[in-house]
Amino acid sequence: MSLAADTSVRGSGSATSLDLGPARALSCRECGHEVPLAAEFACPQCFGPLEVAYDFGRVTRESIEAGPKSIWRYRELLPVPARVTSVPNTEPGLTRLIKADRLGAELGLRNLWVKDDTGNPTHSFKDRVVAVALAAARELGFTVLCCPSTGNLANAVAAAAARAGWDSVVLIPSSLEQAKVLTTAVYGGTLLAVDGNYDDVNRLATELAAEHEDWAFVNVNVRPYYAEGSKTLGFEVAEQLGWRLPEQVVVPVASGSQLTKVDKGFTELGRLGLVEATPYKVFGAQATGCSPVSTAYAEGTDVVRPVKPDTIARSLAIGNPADGPYVLDAVRRTGGAVADVSDAEVVEGIRLLARTEGVFAETAGGVTIATTRKLVESGQLDPDAETVLLITGDGLKTLDAVSGQVGPTATVPSTSKAVREALAAQGL
Amino acid sequence: MSLAADTSVRGSGSATSLDLGPARALSCRECGHEVPLAAEFACPQCFGPLEVAYDFGRVTRESIEAGPKSIWRYRELLPVPARVTSVPNTEPGLTRLIKADRLGAELGLRNLWVKDDTGNPTHSFKDRVVAVALAAARELGFTVLCCPSTGNLANAVAAAAARAGWDSVVLIPSSLEQAKVLTTAVYGGTLLAVDGNYDDVNRLATELAAEHEDWAFVNVNVRPYYAEGSKTLGFEVAEQLGWRLPEQVVVPVASGSQLTKVDKGFTELGRLGLVEATPYKVFGAQATGCSPVSTAYAEGTDVVRPVKPDTIARSLAIGNPADGPYVLDAVRRTGGAVADVSDAEVVEGIRLLARTEGVFAETAGGVTIATTRKLVESGQLDPDAETVLLITGDGLKTLDAVSGQVGPTATVPSTSKAVREALAAQGL
Ligand SMILES: Cc1ncc(COP(=O)(O)O)c(C=O)c1O
Ligand SMILES: Cc1ncc(COP(=O)(O)O)c(C=O)c1O
Ligand SMILES: [Zn+2]
Ligand SMILES: [Zn+2]
Repeated sequence: MSLAADTSVRGSGSATSLDLGPARALSCRECGHEVPLAAEFACPQCFGPLEVAYDFGRVTRESIEAGPKSIWRYRELLPVPARVTSVPNTEPGLTRLIKADRLGAELGLRNLWVKDDTGNPTHSFKDRVVAVALAAARELGFTVLCCPSTGNLANAVAAAAARAGWDSVVLIPSSLEQAKVLTTAVYGGTLLAVDGNYDDVNRLATELAAEHEDWAFVNVNVRPYYAEGSKTLGFEVAEQLGWRLPEQVVVPVASGSQLTKVDKGFTELGRLGLVEATPYKVFGAQATGCSPVSTAYAEGTDVVRPVKPDTIARSLAIGNPADGPYVLDAVRRTGGAVADVSDAEVVEGIRLLARTEGVFAETAGGVTIATTRKLVESGQLDPDAETVLLITGDGLKTLDAVSGQVGPTATVPSTSKAVREALAAQGL
Repeated sequence: MSLAADTSVRGSGSATSLDLGPARALSCRECGHEVPLAAEFACPQCFGPLEVAYDFGRVTRESIEAGPKSIWRYRELLPVPARVTSVPNTEPGLTRLIKADRLGAELGLRNLWVKDDTGNPTHSFKDRVVAVALAAARELGFTVLCCPSTGNLANAVAAAAARAGWDSVVLIPSSLEQAKVLTTAVYGGTLLAVDGNYDDVNRLATELAAEHEDWAFVNVNVRPYYAEGSKTLGFEVAEQLGWRLPEQVVVPVASGSQLTKVDKGFTELGRLGLVEATPYKVFGAQATGCSPVSTAYAEGTDVVRPVKPDTIARSLAIGNPADGPYVLDAVRRTGGAVADVSDAEVVEGIRLLARTEGVFAETAGGVTIATTRKLVESGQLDPDAETVLLITGDGLKTLDAVSGQVGPTATVPSTSKAVREALAAQGL
């Protein structure tokens, strides 16, 4: 699966000129086989997915805290060169972790936090994975940044490429929310809308990745590097809690990459002695209209059967999730669970989070909130355990989900009398 | 102009039970008359605007750097209690300051930075002023958070009130962008859409402020406290430059509050010895369709004549800007200027920023970029001086500005052949 190499670096397997920081090799998740760092993503022995293996140096809380106020403070734990901040990138991360007592009271969780990742440059956690992918892709000799996307990744890739002065090629299903389409197009790269669903678009992108040796499809041929970016969500949560792991974390699941990497991040912090390696449970959240992982969890199997997505949570609409089996592993190993919720519950989840904590999430956030409620009601989430919910995308990108439901409480002529009457009608 | 006081605190003039941190009094910008800290906004002697006066303690870079990663790191320089972080608020600030070499090359500025304030909780700088207003309003005994707004302030007030568990009352012109309407309504407060422009809405709000003693209209009866929040933009720019003032800063102007407070922030840092008090020039940016301050600047007068706004930059559409004269003062005192640009230039400014730096700004950001270009061309901005542009609002809230102009480069059937042909047609 190695791409043809036209430079001394890319795909060459020679790590001498390659600086990917603490990254040591790529190793197969299935058989453990290792290959040198390169633009590869599937094991040459068994076709299993490759992931980054490290030789971490001595990493201290102090060195992290003295670093930049972005994900680059964790660069010693990522496959990026130490000089990563000296070239233009998007500097995502260090988003708010807020104590969510009002939401907790509604959900029945007595020690609740919300990680609000809408503060990133293009307002989703995808800026994290793309920033790492761009840094690694540059080292690997690529010159064009690409992806198939359910929307948020499209925004992040087009923005990061613009910032770096790279061309971008982005493929999206033509049915995407207009906000996500415009917010990709405005950055000026190539944007192909494909009349198909995400799984179709992903297949087309995989073909293109094999044909264009300069094109880094962040979630295809540089996926091992890209995926590591999600660890920073775990790192930040732990640092912001005062270098401590939460007892429970709820994560939305599309391909499943994010969930597995939050887990990996927590584990690495424990191994490196940056936090005490206390037990934690990882929970996955899906929309019922695209819930292959939740279904497999409920059925107690290891096999994730592909589905045809039909849900308003379009950012999570991946019917054939690449990391589905690893989500099941992480969830079962830690004692968590995966559950799913209806589109109506998603909208109610968005509104509940907005009115209790002033955080306006996209549909994926509604999935997380509503699934959390369900898992509390079923007794799978412990109401007394410290819990963190990951809000990974922004409500401004999925306005349709709420536009029929909320609006001005009144529209009035521009007179004092009309205003007073409207307020009185609302008991004010 | 003191509001009737029904608690021992509000409007009482007794500072004993009131903890507003380093704030010492309110002082009149026109005659210097001082009144005790209270919910007042106009001088009892001359009706001039009141602003917060301080007794700063010893403030060091170290104490700031050791503080929270939000505007609250500057709490020793704001009219808020030291315990401000112990009650729910929105924790805005510490947004990205990015080196903008690619934009600089296009604009002809050789040392350019962009302050990207879209990373705030509701994606505009208004989260800063509202967070300070909420903290002060709580101390002053208010219980409802209110405002008249051109949109961004509405979002910020409704979100902050939700987070704090307060009721909110927000008045907006009914012509506002749908994104800004929904993004206010979703937080669940009272939202009145008024068939009039911002200046009408502002007048109605001022009446209501006089009638409801528990209602804090952030930009009316607690305006002196609110306005101080904009200083944090100046503080952050200086800290992020390595405790140094830039030589030039370009700021969009609606009421003019933000520009005057960025100036005040720079001055305070110099006085306190936190930065060297090097000279800097402040520039103001307006849309031609609402450019009363730019007109006054061009005419060389002190008098800002109200206009009836007509521009796509609706967030800046304040025809009768309260702080207009003080903008003229700050700009003339520092050697800056005010200029204005057409709506077409605004759109071109949005697109230029997006494609060079991956930052998607709302129309106000387009105003800033396009005005900067104009000021370079006229020789008023020095191309060699270190320059910071304030991008204060988010492109997702004003999609209409670009929706006719950008979109997918092609829409194709879901086949490899169609994708390859579309890419070939684009030279790829
Ligand atoms: C907002 C949001 N949250 C969560 C996810 C899930 O990511 P993953 O594919 O890593 O499971 C996505 C994927 O697009 C997303 O857009
Ligand atoms: C995005 C944005 N930038 C700048 C301003 C200008 O603020 P000021 O009224 O303080 O001049 C506003 C005002 O609403 C705004 O919404
Ligand atoms: Zn293998
Ligand atoms: Zn006075």
